[in-house]
Amino acid sequence: MSKKPLILVTNDDGITAPGIRTLIKVMNKIGDVIVVAPDSPQSGMGHAITVDATLHVRREHIDNGPQIEYSTSGTPADCIKLAKNEILNQTPDLCVSGINHGSNSSINVIYSGTMSAAIEAGIEGIPAIGFSLCDYSYEAIFDDLEKYVQTIAENVLEHGLTDGVVLNVNFPKVEKGAIKGIKICRQARGNWEETFDKRQNPQGKDYYWLSGKFVNLDKGEDTDDWALNNGYASIVPVHFDLTAHHSIQQLNSWSLND
Amino acid sequence: MSKKPLILVTNDDGITAPGIRTLIKVMNKIGDVIVVAPDSPQSGMGHAITVDATLHVRREHIDNGPQIEYSTSGTPADCIKLAKNEILNQTPDLCVSGINHGSNSSINVIYSGTMSAAIEAGIEGIPAIGFSLCDYSYEAIFDDLEKYVQTIAENVLEHGLTDGVVLNVNFPKVEKGAIKGIKICRQARGNWEETFDKRQNPQGKDYYWLSGKFVNLDKGEDTDDWALNNGYASIVPVHFDLTAHHSIQQLNSWSLND
Repeated sequence: MSKKPLILVTNDDGITAPGIRTLIKVMNKIGDVIVVAPDSPQSGMGHAITVDATLHVRREHIDNGPQIEYSTSGTPADCIKLAKNEILNQTPDLCVSGINHGSNSSINVIYSGTMSAAIEAGIEGIPAIGFSLCDYSYEAIFDDLEKYVQTIAENVLEHGLTDGVVLNVNFPKVEKGAIKGIKICRQARGNWEETFDKRQNPQGKDYYWLSGKFVNLDKGEDTDDWALNNGYASIVPVHFDLTAHHSIQQLNSWSLND
Repeated sequence: MSKKPLILVTNDDGITAPGIRTLIKVMNKIGDVIVVAPDSPQSGMGHAITVDATLHVRREHIDNGPQIEYSTSGTPADCIKLAKNEILNQTPDLCVSGINHGSNSSINVIYSGTMSAAIEAGIEGIPAIGFSLCDYSYEAIFDDLEKYVQTIAENVLEHGLTDGVVLNVNFPKVEKGAIKGIKICRQARGNWEETFDKRQNPQGKDYYWLSGKFVNLDKGEDTDDWALNNGYASIVPVHFDLTAHHSIQQLNSWSLND
């Protein structure tokens, strides 16, 4: 009988969020699960790491599942570093992050704590997947996603991923049973148009809340946003070699060394 | 007479760091300068944005230069959003970030607040450059870099950048006058091997400091690390479409929709 895979689970909404509890439940069906996740929400943290503060780690017993759980005071990327280098004595077979309460499609991947954990795992040589549901509500319903999450994780365990590549999986917010299937996509070219809500504190001093709306001008039917807007789950393979290879020739034509 | 370009300057070491003061000095030679930078150091912040706290902005008068300066309580990415959408009434012609005290070559680009500001500017459609010196010391000497910074910025203003591309510029730590020139490079494939320094507080509770060493197994002479190790400044064109296009075909061969 083959050994069960060792699966590391993390997220950025904090260890008690419904999304990660769903992910743990699904992973318990296919492997031995260790959870190392932030003790509080870390959304919008991008790929932050903790370099100038201390980190704390605490053993947790949140439900009666077979998984072993730790919470940390760190960011999602810190959790991966702590899991691999301090808590575990081996490299996990798979790392899954999420399920995020909110979209990480298109440019959101850049700001995403969920995806920063998956990317950090990829950098450390662990096959990794970030899962997100396009519903920001804490009470979002994750039941419908379980079979897709399981299928995708099993495929990664079976086939592996190209070196340097992790998966960014997003699920549409649709009625129960309405997800049409899974599409492999590219990242849509979109951005946020920010507005700052300017207010005054009781002492008359200005302060701001960041706000804004997502704008997608990329109508490509091969994009993650197209898939999600049309009822499909999207998978974008993501890499952390940020080199824009197509620009190297242009830059080599400049006169930089005259 | 042509209008001087409007140049936005930011960093992640904080508005008073010697690196940004050098960058402001150089930019004053080629354009009208507005500085919007963090009021305190933000290293390791990756592409963090402030979504669940308020932001403060303060007018600063740090030296007698012609630039206009603001400090903010936000991250480097926040500074770009605040500058474009709240402080300025126009899109700058160029955004420069740094000069960072420490390397942002190879995988460090992922964790870099300096580069997150440049990338955020790129997302907002502003030609952008992140500058870093491979010397973590606060007392690092930036004089030697000034002519290179000016040349690179002038080239970007003259030629523009490919849509969706920003520049990651790193300078080697070498003796005065010893920089050999500038090379256009790809990002070296490297990673950090972390060690956690485990200690106990006076109450006997464990805590950790993140530590580690950078490991580069990529010997390519077209990489940023090769250039820096051989006395050259490196320029890597960086993009924020993270799609690993070369993996899409592999993923399309999986049985995900059976």
